[in-house]
Parts: sequence; C-alpha cells; structure tokens
Amino acid sequence: MGFDELWSALDPVGRDPRTGGYRRYAWTDQDQELREWFAAECGARGLDLTVDRAGNQWAWWGDPDQAARAGRPGVVTGSHLDSVPDGGAYDGPLGVVSGLLAIDTLRAKRFEPTRPIGVACFSDEEGARFGVACVGSRLVTGALEPDRARALADDDGTSLADAMARAGQRPDAVGRDDEALARVGCFVELHVEQGRDLVDRDRSVGVASAILPHGRWRLDLVGEANHAGTTRLADRKDPMLALAAVVATARREAEQRGCLATVGKVVVDPNGVNAIPSRVTAWLDARGEDVDQVRALVEHVGRAAGVRATEESFTSATRFDPSLAERLAQHLQDAPILATGAGHDAGILAAAGIPSAMLFVRNPSGVSHSPSEHAERTDCLAGIDALAAVVEDLAR
Amino acid sequence: MGFDELWSALDPVGRDPRTGGYRRYAWTDQDQELREWFAAECGARGLDLTVDRAGNQWAWWGDPDQAARAGRPGVVTGSHLDSVPDGGAYDGPLGVVSGLLAIDTLRAKRFEPTRPIGVACFSDEEGARFGVACVGSRLVTGALEPDRARALADDDGTSLADAMARAGQRPDAVGRDDEALARVGCFVELHVEQGRDLVDRDRSVGVASAILPHGRWRLDLVGEANHAGTTRLADRKDPMLALAAVVATARREAEQRGCLATVGKVVVDPNGVNAIPSRVTAWLDARGEDVDQVRALVEHVGRAAGVRATEESFTSATRFDPSLAERLAQHLQDAPILATGAGHDAGILAAAGIPSAMLFVRNPSGVSHSPSEHAERTDCLAGIDALAAVVEDLAR
Repeated sequence: MGFDELWSALDPVGRDPRTGGYRRYAWTDQDQELREWFAAECGARGLDLTVDRAGNQWAWWGDPDQAARAGRPGVVTGSHLDSVPDGGAYDGPLGVVSGLLAIDTLRAKRFEPTRPIGVACFSDEEGARFGVACVGSRLVTGALEPDRARALADDDGTSLADAMARAGQRPDAVGRDDEALARVGCFVELHVEQGRDLVDRDRSVGVASAILPHGRWRLDLVGEANHAGTTRLADRKDPMLALAAVVATARREAEQRGCLATVGKVVVDPNGVNAIPSRVTAWLDARGEDVDQVRALVEHVGRAAGVRATEESFTSATRFDPSLAERLAQHLQDAPILATGAGHDAGILAAAGIPSAMLFVRNPSGVSHSPSEHAERTDCLAGIDALAAVVEDLAR
Repeated sequence: MGFDELWSALDPVGRDPRTGGYRRYAWTDQDQELREWFAAECGARGLDLTVDRAGNQWAWWGDPDQAARAGRPGVVTGSHLDSVPDGGAYDGPLGVVSGLLAIDTLRAKRFEPTRPIGVACFSDEEGARFGVACVGSRLVTGALEPDRARALADDDGTSLADAMARAGQRPDAVGRDDEALARVGCFVELHVEQGRDLVDRDRSVGVASAILPHGRWRLDLVGEANHAGTTRLADRKDPMLALAAVVATARREAEQRGCLATVGKVVVDPNGVNAIPSRVTAWLDARGEDVDQVRALVEHVGRAAGVRATEESFTSATRFDPSLAERLAQHLQDAPILATGAGHDAGILAAAGIPSAMLFVRNPSGVSHSPSEHAERTDCLAGIDALAAVVEDLAR
C-alpha cells in the first residue's frame, strides 16, 4: 500500500465519531487491530516480524541477529500507534507509516543496505490507559521495573498484566530484553512536530536536539462526602477547593519558573451534583529546561493542596546523540535543530545508550494531542524522503 | 417482613463493595430490583399497587378512586428508593420502609381508617443519572415538561425516554397525571435528617417547615485541546483554569451571601494526563434562604469563568402547609419544626397545591449523601411510631 492507502486503512481504527479524535489505548481491541495492521503491512513487504518481551513489534529487512553478531547492528526507525484520549491522527502513526514508505522508497531505487533496516512499533507510548508513558520502550531497556509495570491499573481497575494477558501477551515475560536491544545500532524516530518552530522557520522537516525534563505526578485530595444542600460551609471537607488551589498554583508557578504545568486529568468521587466529593484525584504534568525549577513547582503545588504529590514518572533531560543529529541536519540541507518538551520512545532509547535521533515534520497549527493535529501531505512526503535519505546514509 | 428483615432485603441492592455506598440510579437493573421488592412487599400486605404515568409506584390500603369521588382522598406517605452516587442507606428508603411498617402498626392495633392510606415510591428523586432531581414527582404534577424529561441524557448519552422504555415503562405516556393526583388528599414524607439540628436539640423526630430555594446549574467551560509538553502557556486555552475560578468563586460568594454552593460533579474531556482539556463541564449546586442572593451567586460564578451558567433545575422556596406542620408537631409532643436546604418529593407536591409535610429522623453525624449516613435503630422505630400516629390522626 502507498501513502494514501496506508492512511485510509488507519483512519477508522479507534476513531470516536463524536469528537473525531482517536482512542487507541494499550492492549485494547483497537490496539490489537493496529498491531495486526502493522504485521500485515510488514508481511506484504516481506519484512520479518519479531515481538520483544515488552510486546513491541520490530519488522526487519535483513537478518538483525546475524548482523548484530558481526558487529553491524541495524538502523531502526518507527514510532507508536497508540493515542491519548481524543488524540490526533499523526502523533505516532506518522513515524510508522513513514518508516514503511521509506523502505519502499529505498527498494524502488534498488538500494542495497549493508546493515539490516528495521521499523519498530512501540507499545503504550502515550500511557493513556495506565498512566506511565513509553511503557514499551522503558520495559525493553530496563528503565521500568517489570513488577511496577505489571501492577499499573487503568481507571476500571484492570492491571496492565491482566490487559496484556487478555491480548495474548505474556506479562510474566516483560523486562529488559538484551537480545532485542543488541539488534539496534541506532534509532531515528520521525514524528509530527508538537509546536510551531518549523512554521516560524518555514521548513518542512527539522531535527531534534534534546527532550526537556518532564514528569507526571498524582495528587490525592481527600475530603468527606456530604449533602450539598444541608452541610454548613464551616463543616465541609471539600476536596474540590484543593483542586482549585492545585490548578491555580500550577499555572502561577509555571509562569514564574519558566516551566510548563498542566492539570489535564481529574477524577471526582462520587461525582454527584448534590454531593460534596469524598475525593478528587488530579494529575499534574510538569516540564521545563531546569529540573530544579520543575521539582520546586511540583513541591509548591502539593503544598497549596496540603498533600504530597506522588511521582508516577520522571525523565530528566535527554540529549540526543549530537554527532548523529549534526549528520542528519547536514544531510537535510541544514535542517533546523530543535529541543522539545514532549517525551518519546527515541528519548528512552537514547537514555539507554542507543545512539538516537528524531526528525520532526511541520504541523501548521502546532496543535497536538487533539483531533485538530495536522500535517500537510507535501510535508509528510518530504518527511518520508528525509527519513529515506537518513536511513540510506546510515545503512550504506 | 418486619423492620430488620426489610433492611436486610434492601442492604445488598446496588451496593458498591469498594465504597460501601449505594449506586441506585433511575431505570437501571438496580432500580428495577427495588421496584420489584416494593411491589412484593405491598403484595404481601394485600395493598393494591398502581403505577402512574411517570412510573411512580403507589400502594393503597382502601380504594383511592372511590374515596376521591366521595371527596375523601387518601392520606399518603412514602419517599424514594434511588440514590446519589455512593449514597447512604437511609436517604429515601427510610421513608418507604417506615410507610410500610406504619401500616403494619396501624393494622396490629386494628385501626379502621375512614380514608385510604397510601405508600408512594417516587421515581428518580435524586436525579443522579439524568441531572434533574425529583423527576417522578415533577412529571406527575406537571412541573417538568414531558418533552424536556424525555430528552434528558445520562453520561453515556442514553436518553431518559430510552432508559424508561428499556425498563418496560412507556415514555410517551409521561406527563401530569390528574387521576393519580386526585387520589392524594395529603402527603407526609418521612426522611433521615441531613443535618444536625435534631442532634443539637436531643430529639428523635422533627417536623419540616420549609425547603430553601435551590437549583442546579451547568457550566460549559470550553478550551482547546493541545499537548501539555509543547504548548506555550501564552498559547493555551485551558478550561481547567476556568474550573478553578468557578470553584473558588462559588465558595467565596456563598460565604459572603449566606448561601450554600457546591461543585460536586466535574467531567473533563478528553481527561488525559498529557493533554490540555478541550472542555470541562462543571455542575454548581446553590441554595439559600434568599433567592436573590442565590441568583446573584450563580451570576458571579458564571462571570468568573466567562460563561453563562445554564439552569438545569430551580425550585424557589417551598413552605409546607403550616397548619399541617403545626398539627404534626403538637401530635408528636411538640416536636421541633425545622427548615431544610434539601429538595424532596414532598416539596414538589406542596408546590403543586397538595397539603404536604415532612418528618425528619435524627442522624447522629448529620452526614448524608455518603456511605456514612446513619440513623440509630431506636430513632428509626420512633420515626415509625410518629408516622403511624400522624397517619392515624389524618385518616381517622
């Protein structure tokens, strides 16, 4: 399948007709459908599919194990297919689609790689269901403890282990997978840009320099349920007031400290119109160039609510391989080199010592994690050409 | 069945084992089970069961139609069996159980009423599922437009009409039911107290004087979904900030105006940790003695969020029949007469011109709409005795 056919096939999977956004969560039926789609596309191209201990899919042109033993491990591209709630079409899938089409491009020009070329499809990058992002890449590199991962639970109380088992995966097998890692000589992830730098610079494609420190914290705001119509204000223990303090403090601290802070997810119990809540759970996403400022922000937000924020994940600054980034940028007519506030599987692999890089494709509005996320067809095609050129250069 | 057996039968229905609270929402399986329980208990007592056009159940000792024609319509007690999310055991069921047991008491002493005695079980009093409280009593009295009621939708998008139809009820038939109303000469609702006035006064039972003005408003806070890690603070349209303003303003205005204001229910879209929400919907419950102050409070809350609050329901002050209240209080050894901030079916019937009254049974903590809502066994039995005495007096 070509560019348009690949997108047409992906278009309906997990799409909410009311919002137009995608709900593709890890280890659901939608996720399974996307995995089968990927396997079928790899099969149609004669690529060999392997699945690592964390459930990540890897498609290979060439024998990666033989190459690894010979000291010439593979050149890998790819991304993920899962989404945030009401996510856009491009965040993740653009990297997978572009990887497959870059291989088509190289084959059409009869390129003969001297190293295997791989396309990876990582499990559960967004963490929309179990709260921790990049679960697949964290598990395979050993950055996430298998026991902790297995015990993660979704909003319905289903554990990640149970969800994996229901999807036919073996949760007892998850953990660092040295065999899978040995096959990866370097990793280049192509991704839709999640900001407007390329718009401002009037360029189709850019190269990533670094991922800013970022993390997620949970605030458990406990009150006492009671009747909204009969409980005196002075007698109330209303956790909704603590939520208001969390939201206001997070924004103020972010402004003062040059950070980003977002309360994007809130769960209220029992969530009845005429009941003071017994509990409000809020999640804080905080990021910034200076890790000390991010930590101080989180500290102040917790203090404003009278609780201690529970860290669910934290990733300190990730600097991509500078020589690789430089090589990519030069190869792409001096493409701009940009830092980003978003976490990616490429960042996890980089932190694990695998030379990694990222290409960004222009996003006209800069909007991401939303149904209005977009990339123009011509920019997507420019991205595929850039990716093919980079992979050709690295696998020559 | 006696007191303990009736409570034992109700105990497990719709109880959430995690919270210990009840989730008994209108036109669900749990609701159906409660309706069947009520029908069976009425059958066991030889009471005739009728269901009005709104789905409210009425059990009769004596022929209410014949009596209505003779100008001696019935003396009715009762309450409701549905609950708020994670509600307590007593709010609603105490009035129904006490009604059945008051009839047992009167029969045991061979009382022979000269008017029919009824026990009513009203549909959807709490409005937990469709957002409007007292739907059954509002519909039967014509206070709620049938078209508006049918179109109400729950959080899953199911309309009230569809939910009623699935439960075997006829949604096309809902509307003011004069035949049902003609049978009701007066209505006395027994209810667990939702405050601590009776505790402070050291009394088991009290009589209601009035229900304060109260209403529910919805605030649609619209923003723009975007990536939490890449969107500059200045570029954000984050509706969570408006929610914080709503919550803080509601509390401040309530304090200043001598009202009660509660934000108990919040729905965030898409509710992802790393996405700025596209929309936050918040519900404001506001009550107070002075209706102008309540309206000013709602106005200010909307202004703080930059939106206009949508009124979902509003009930102005309801004064119960003063001579009926006085008669009840004197009959019960000068029981105290109390106003309340909570809405009840008795208030809806009073507003429709039916002489109505309420009895309150002491609640040790004053906590309601919570699993920790409670009433002591001895106070419940005192409530039944009081209700039997009142009904005997009215039906003599």
